[in-house]
Amino acid sequence: MTPTLADIRAAAERIKPYAHRTPVLTCESLNQKVGARVFLKCENLQKVGAFKFRGACNAVYSLTNEEAARGVCTHSSGNHAQALALAAKIRGIPAYIVMPNNAPSVKKNAVAGYGGRITFCEPTLEARESTLDRIRLETGATLVHPYNDERVVAGQGTAALELLEDIPDLDVVIAPVGGGGLLSGTAIAATELKKGIRVIAGEPEMADDAFRSMREGVIVPSINPKTIADGLLTSLGTLTFPIIQKQVEQIVTVSEAGIVETMKYVWERAKIVIEPSSAVAVGVLWEKKIDLGGLRVGVILSGGNVDLEKLPW
Amino acid sequence: MTPTLADIRAAAERIKPYAHRTPVLTCESLNQKVGARVFLKCENLQKVGAFKFRGACNAVYSLTNEEAARGVCTHSSGNHAQALALAAKIRGIPAYIVMPNNAPSVKKNAVAGYGGRITFCEPTLEARESTLDRIRLETGATLVHPYNDERVVAGQGTAALELLEDIPDLDVVIAPVGGGGLLSGTAIAATELKKGIRVIAGEPEMADDAFRSMREGVIVPSINPKTIADGLLTSLGTLTFPIIQKQVEQIVTVSEAGIVETMKYVWERAKIVIEPSSAVAVGVLWEKKIDLGGLRVGVILSGGNVDLEKLPW
Repeated sequence: MTPTLADIRAAAERIKPYAHRTPVLTCESLNQKVGARVFLKCENLQKVGAFKFRGACNAVYSLTNEEAARGVCTHSSGNHAQALALAAKIRGIPAYIVMPNNAPSVKKNAVAGYGGRITFCEPTLEARESTLDRIRLETGATLVHPYNDERVVAGQGTAALELLEDIPDLDVVIAPVGGGGLLSGTAIAATELKKGIRVIAGEPEMADDAFRSMREGVIVPSINPKTIADGLLTSLGTLTFPIIQKQVEQIVTVSEAGIVETMKYVWERAKIVIEPSSAVAVGVLWEKKIDLGGLRVGVILSGGNVDLEKLPW
Repeated sequence: MTPTLADIRAAAERIKPYAHRTPVLTCESLNQKVGARVFLKCENLQKVGAFKFRGACNAVYSLTNEEAARGVCTHSSGNHAQALALAAKIRGIPAYIVMPNNAPSVKKNAVAGYGGRITFCEPTLEARESTLDRIRLETGATLVHPYNDERVVAGQGTAALELLEDIPDLDVVIAPVGGGGLLSGTAIAATELKKGIRVIAGEPEMADDAFRSMREGVIVPSINPKTIADGLLTSLGTLTFPIIQKQVEQIVTVSEAGIVETMKYVWERAKIVIEPSSAVAVGVLWEKKIDLGGLRVGVILSGGNVDLEKLPW
């Protein structure tokens, strides 16, 4: 079932005791640079440094006590794994995380640091899925998919809900798109809260499956995409694609150079640490492929998880 | 005259239309790391990326129309110059800024970008002061000193006022100390708003004039101090020292390594860009030279102006 605004409101109540209500920041020099009034919804300042905590937390707290006791599981090496591990830790239940054995140690340590129980497997999709299946059978844990899950989509939509509560008179909302969980939740919240609001996605040119899927009318996955925006490598899911088709005006692609320039500019001028995936959303304004001049534009920053030892400038 | 809480409240009203009310952020991993409940007052997210805008703005808007028409002036190459230039620009009056001719071009460009009228001079204190005197005579502009000025101190105190409005039950407030404008304003606001609150300053070990001045009971300036916290090179002033003597519990020095570690940790975990001077304040908690275990500690982050091309790690 496609989540509704009511589901997003319920998610907001559910996660309220555990998630940060992140601030909405403005930056005059950014406004001047891109020629619009920009409102940055700072999910980089969310728990685990990413919006992912909203969806994971909503999923974990949607479980009955009986379900919860058996734990949750997922395969991921990114922010979703950390988010699920933390949400489970807060509820006091196990989180089983399947990770490829070649995942960077910083990601392993982060998941372990939040108390996630990691099972390593070969770095293939088959190995990840079969390992996850085995763990589900053994433990009875509930699978929480990173985006193709109604509870997760509803949770991600709470960022846009808060943004529009704080800044009701937006003309446009921009979110980055990978698997589409954030984008679809954003689209549901924004279009139901404000008639006529435009929802636009930013996507890396080098991982433009959503752009191509919208054009073709079917999900066209990316094959081994390579982009600095490593949170946006995944392709759309069967839950998220129809929502995006119906409620998102367009997908705008952003170049790798544009992502890095935007990221550096936001660090320098807005004084916040954003990850490349966040810069993809701001990059829609930066590269000006579409005209948003003079409009009031809310931008959902996905997160701020970057390796400070490997900055791209 | 020493500013009072009433002056700080008046300053808050005066600057309200122009300054950001900056958010107060928390970071669970930082809390665990330092063993206290930390509330970060984010002046790095203030206009021009530093608390300095508060004092400069209060000074500029305290002028009569007649005074204002003749402009304001100062000698500075740092955040105060940018802050004064922007405040003057907003009021529509000239800001005359004297800078040494060897100031980094990034600082020159920043001041010029805010519309400041720069006069370069030889890089000596004598040249700076005589050049400033000449400009004052020629233009009739009002001098706005970076910290030894009641209007500036009252303006800087508005950060602590907001912090205690948001988080009233703090046990301790920590601010960094250079010339003492932020620290003295913070001390006035905090001690008048909450009886028994402890006000503590962080100071670089390598520029410890405030620490030594407190011990000696007289202002003991630093001679050519060298620290990465380049916002804290100045020594206390005749206005700020007596306030600090009376209302600040102690000055805690922070090592250069501690400043860099703290700065990197805050970027990584709190996802905000802070300058070394901000890290000096957090560094008081980080280095644990004094026991603040379990307390509720507000920390005023001075700013976020750093060169992303020259990070110290």
